[in-house]
Amino acid sequence: VNISVRKRNAAATRAAILASARQAFARSGYDGAGVREIAQAAGVTAMLVNRYFGSKEQLFAEVVSTTMQSTRLLTEEILNSPDPAAGMAEALVGITAAGETPLDGFRITLNSASSERAAEIARDLLEEHYYSTLAAVLHGPDADHRAGLLLALVAGVQVMRQMVGLPALDDAPTVARLIAPLFRQLLNPGPP
Amino acid sequence: VNISVRKRNAAATRAAILASARQAFARSGYDGAGVREIAQAAGVTAMLVNRYFGSKEQLFAEVVSTTMQSTRLLTEEILNSPDPAAGMAEALVGITAAGETPLDGFRITLNSASSERAAEIARDLLEEHYYSTLAAVLHGPDADHRAGLLLALVAGVQVMRQMVGLPALDDAPTVARLIAPLFRQLLNPGPP
Repeated sequence: VNISVRKRNAAATRAAILASARQAFARSGYDGAGVREIAQAAGVTAMLVNRYFGSKEQLFAEVVSTTMQSTRLLTEEILNSPDPAAGMAEALVGITAAGETPLDGFRITLNSASSERAAEIARDLLEEHYYSTLAAVLHGPDADHRAGLLLALVAGVQVMRQMVGLPALDDAPTVARLIAPLFRQLLNPGPP
Repeated sequence: VNISVRKRNAAATRAAILASARQAFARSGYDGAGVREIAQAAGVTAMLVNRYFGSKEQLFAEVVSTTMQSTRLLTEEILNSPDPAAGMAEALVGITAAGETPLDGFRITLNSASSERAAEIARDLLEEHYYSTLAAVLHGPDADHRAGLLLALVAGVQVMRQMVGLPALDDAPTVARLIAPLFRQLLNPGPP
């Protein structure tokens, strides 16, 4: 087997393990999902899973990373545009269209809620993925709280548009138009 | 057995069935939870569950109703106060303190996501619980969309403060102060 085939196989094996782990963590949470079960569903051995990912903790972190889709709101292009709030609102409406983004991230977080270690990993990843990016655009006082509320608004729109399917939020252009001033308020807070 | 004892027993039985159903729906979702299993955990027969609640659908609706805690934001007192947005922000921060409101509502919705009937019931209840109340305070254009976004913001703060435990949202007074203008914008939208 030459090197490029080995590389391709390694990438395919890695992807298969990640997909299997994502399903298992979504279904059973961090504590409930076992490395052996994840390996079996991916058609590999538990030893191989550990060789690829180091530990169940690291595998969990990789999976949770892949569910953090909201980075699509915080692209360079949107953040450097004349009206970042409008761009973010439009992107948010896009990723929360029915059937657009899978809700695995919510499932994993909820079903892992009993594990303090899993919550810690998720919090660290949120900070790593978003805070550094948001810090660059959020000026003025309480920047960290405003970043947190921005993430809360994103999560809430995902819940109500995707999870619940609230009819009042069906109309994408109207929703985007109404979300933009909320983002604007969080990016550049005016007088209270 | 006199009437008041019978009534008390009926109320206790009803409460036991609801508690058992809440656990079962949170764990297994609408399709996965069986009336027989719910009855057994409550120490009664499936026939009695149906006598009390009519059907699994109606039992599900009752359980989901009990999880809709956000009505505590929309009390007469808050809505008729001089600054409803500030009152709602304070109430939201109160109900999303760590360990305050159980996350069963999220668990039930997520784990029932595969059932179209369960989603329909949840949407109907949301409309029944919130829309009529919100319609009374939301004037001007796009009132239904703004009501939906208000619910999204509430859900998102619950996710980030309770489910994820985001450290940036720990400080209750600061969070309440920053949420108030967002509610204000949704209640009385200014220029975009």
